[in-house]
Amino acid sequence: MIHEIASLTIDPARAAEFEAAVASARPHFEAAKGFVSFGLKRVIENPACYQLIVGWESVEAHMVDFRASPGFQEWRALAGPFFVEAPTVAHLQTVIA
Amino acid sequence: MIHEIASLTIDPARAAEFEAAVASARPHFEAAKGFVSFGLKRVIENPACYQLIVGWESVEAHMVDFRASPGFQEWRALAGPFFVEAPTVAHLQTVIA
Repeated sequence: MIHEIASLTIDPARAAEFEAAVASARPHFEAAKGFVSFGLKRVIENPACYQLIVGWESVEAHMVDFRASPGFQEWRALAGPFFVEAPTVAHLQTVIA
Repeated sequence: MIHEIASLTIDPARAAEFEAAVASARPHFEAAKGFVSFGLKRVIENPACYQLIVGWESVEAHMVDFRASPGFQEWRALAGPFFVEAPTVAHLQTVIA
């Protein structure tokens, strides 16, 4: 199991609307093959910046299976309009839990 | 409760030694006022990069109490020699758990 961490930047004036959009997109992740967990965090020092943190069974479950699925299109349709910069993504493996 | 995320960059050839140093530093965090949780993750796409993820009761517990404590000096003595770039740190609050 690995974690996708997507760094998302929005207009902080639209935070409540963005957070609701992410919450509404959650079922599209939960329905995905290889999905493990879902969370959203906000950077205290820069409230324009969020981290979407998704647990997947493998990098491939995210980058191959999910990215090619209708669920990814639904996610981008809901959250994409809020992005003011291109999202960046990394995958992390746990060393110490 | 918030999470400190410290981005740490090392020489990946020293990964095993670095990971052991972080594990040995863990009790210095656990003994700190306001400590909640401790973890270390490694970036799959860039194995020189790690994230130290520490839960604290507040930003102040990390930035004021811990940073002024002997435990922080112990942490830096153990892990600091591995850093090839200055660490960066952010604090995140959970929006969706």
